[in-house]
Amino acid sequence: MEEMRAVSVTPGVSGSARLTVHPRPVPAAGEALVRVLATGVCGTDREILAGHTGTAPTGAERLIIGHECLGEVVTGDAEGTFPPGTLVAPMVRRPDGCPACRAGRWDLCQWGNYTERGIRGAHGFMAEWYTESPDYLVPLPPELRAAGMLVEPAAVVAKALSEVTQVRSRIPWPATRALVLGGGSIGLLATLLLRHQGLEVHTLDLAAADSLKARLVEASGARYVAGRGVPVNEVAEQAGNLDIVVEATGAPGMAFAAMEATGIGGVAVLLGVPGAAAPREVDAAWLTRRLVEHNAAVVGSINAARLHFDAALTGLLAVQRRWPGVLERMITGRYPLAQFEDAIRGGSDTVKSVVEP
Amino acid sequence: MEEMRAVSVTPGVSGSARLTVHPRPVPAAGEALVRVLATGVCGTDREILAGHTGTAPTGAERLIIGHECLGEVVTGDAEGTFPPGTLVAPMVRRPDGCPACRAGRWDLCQWGNYTERGIRGAHGFMAEWYTESPDYLVPLPPELRAAGMLVEPAAVVAKALSEVTQVRSRIPWPATRALVLGGGSIGLLATLLLRHQGLEVHTLDLAAADSLKARLVEASGARYVAGRGVPVNEVAEQAGNLDIVVEATGAPGMAFAAMEATGIGGVAVLLGVPGAAAPREVDAAWLTRRLVEHNAAVVGSINAARLHFDAALTGLLAVQRRWPGVLERMITGRYPLAQFEDAIRGGSDTVKSVVEP
Repeated sequence: MEEMRAVSVTPGVSGSARLTVHPRPVPAAGEALVRVLATGVCGTDREILAGHTGTAPTGAERLIIGHECLGEVVTGDAEGTFPPGTLVAPMVRRPDGCPACRAGRWDLCQWGNYTERGIRGAHGFMAEWYTESPDYLVPLPPELRAAGMLVEPAAVVAKALSEVTQVRSRIPWPATRALVLGGGSIGLLATLLLRHQGLEVHTLDLAAADSLKARLVEASGARYVAGRGVPVNEVAEQAGNLDIVVEATGAPGMAFAAMEATGIGGVAVLLGVPGAAAPREVDAAWLTRRLVEHNAAVVGSINAARLHFDAALTGLLAVQRRWPGVLERMITGRYPLAQFEDAIRGGSDTVKSVVEP
Repeated sequence: MEEMRAVSVTPGVSGSARLTVHPRPVPAAGEALVRVLATGVCGTDREILAGHTGTAPTGAERLIIGHECLGEVVTGDAEGTFPPGTLVAPMVRRPDGCPACRAGRWDLCQWGNYTERGIRGAHGFMAEWYTESPDYLVPLPPELRAAGMLVEPAAVVAKALSEVTQVRSRIPWPATRALVLGGGSIGLLATLLLRHQGLEVHTLDLAAADSLKARLVEASGARYVAGRGVPVNEVAEQAGNLDIVVEATGAPGMAFAAMEATGIGGVAVLLGVPGAAAPREVDAAWLTRRLVEHNAAVVGSINAARLHFDAALTGLLAVQRRWPGVLERMITGRYPLAQFEDAIRGGSDTVKSVVEP
């Protein structure tokens, strides 16, 4: 049996991440064999590494992590949908048979028995190889060879922005102004996609005004706010009526800051999930009055279905054409598998670290 | 000059409500003169009486209160839209010329310079007479002679449920189960309208299980939960996945309880506005994770435009046909103008007190 190396954890055990050796997966009937080119590291991975979330596949002790993956098909599927050499991004969630899942909307899974590759009950992609059914592979054009591991986070953002558009469709004037909280990969992708939609965008992060994050934000014509010590409500007031607020920090309490920042008819979308319990004192009366008097809305968004991956692909290609190099510059570090710990560590100006087997 | 009696306050001064004498209004060109039949008392009136909100018309010291009104046209408008004898409900908000207001959606006013009769900068209807342009009058059929003062709160509910429907339209399965927090007139009207839409409805209030509120809820086939000492999250868990949560108590902290109660793809709509500041300790991480993982939404809703009054009228007539007498039974007290203080006082089983000049 051939072997491969991967990064795995014992779920629930902080600091248990190791480079481990596994059998190289053999494609089942109809599956493609994919060679991993690069796997991104994100906040969910760090939560898994801290032992806060993650479950191993049934019967296994360890979980191979990684769910933001760019790969290349080596052995195509039986139907020839993905000939060898095709670049692919795998989707993450696997349906459980509930009505939403059956309708292709596993991102809205009703039974909650889904698995997620690299997160929950199924091995991920921070490995040398994986196999997958074509049902869960998204073919990518060669233009995305350098930044294709951003398709998954972009799909999460595309889902969130689609939710915002639908929630906001009841408001009879177009959205023109957005605030993005967080300049990590999710916040930056939201910034780029909103800018491409023509909105005025203000993006706030703790990084300095001369940081890479600031330059990437400004490359798209958005305004960067170096937010250390700057209250969100001040930024919101200076910006003017906010039609869209994207909460992409996952910092405790920022969900409330996002709610408070929404303007008249505004929609805040929450993408970030704080890890540990975080009690906050909130003026319930003031926040409620604000949402009610502004006819404002808040929507939580998680995961992405195929339609969102398709939207992400369209969006990323448009962004790449419009602001050449901006996606590649988001990849702030490329590490071999054996140096996965450096990839995970990151710094204040890390946007996206990727592991390349 | 002829005179009339009305209930007025000095805005901002608690306990300043008095029966006062005013010039009987004279219709301007195109306006109708309306004799007031009944004016309902609601939470906003109590907030005005407590001095927490309310502003007098420009140049006036006192504000005539009352905004839930059933009247009868005495002198019709010039165009004959409202012949004498027509039952009418006046709308409350008056537009300020912003784009939303110009499009008939003053409930979403963008400039915030609207006035509201009986609340903000314009006299209300707890009086013997009023005049109004036909643009702001809703004609009612004779079937609503007994309960027509419920059209205004029903319009507020219709707006809220319309928002919920639109926010939830992104979810690919129909709403089947709702929780209504509060058994006052807003909560009961929400219960009745949701039941009429075919939903399973659970309505929670502090009143006892054998109270009038309980009987009215149960008359429509909804389940009444006597909620004293019962945590909302327990009710929500027992009920099953909640597609819709209506927060109609305005009690501080209940907005968070409503958010936490939303099920997968659920929408909480906030209608109640707490009066004074109300700091609450909330687990920001838990609440955020809940909204995100459930793809749940929260929307604030206030006021109503003409389309919502039209929807309310249709809804109330359907409710009245389906559950005869239930609307009339919501009118728990009818008081002459001079006894307005008894109308305002109310008790735990008061649903809607009305003042009849």
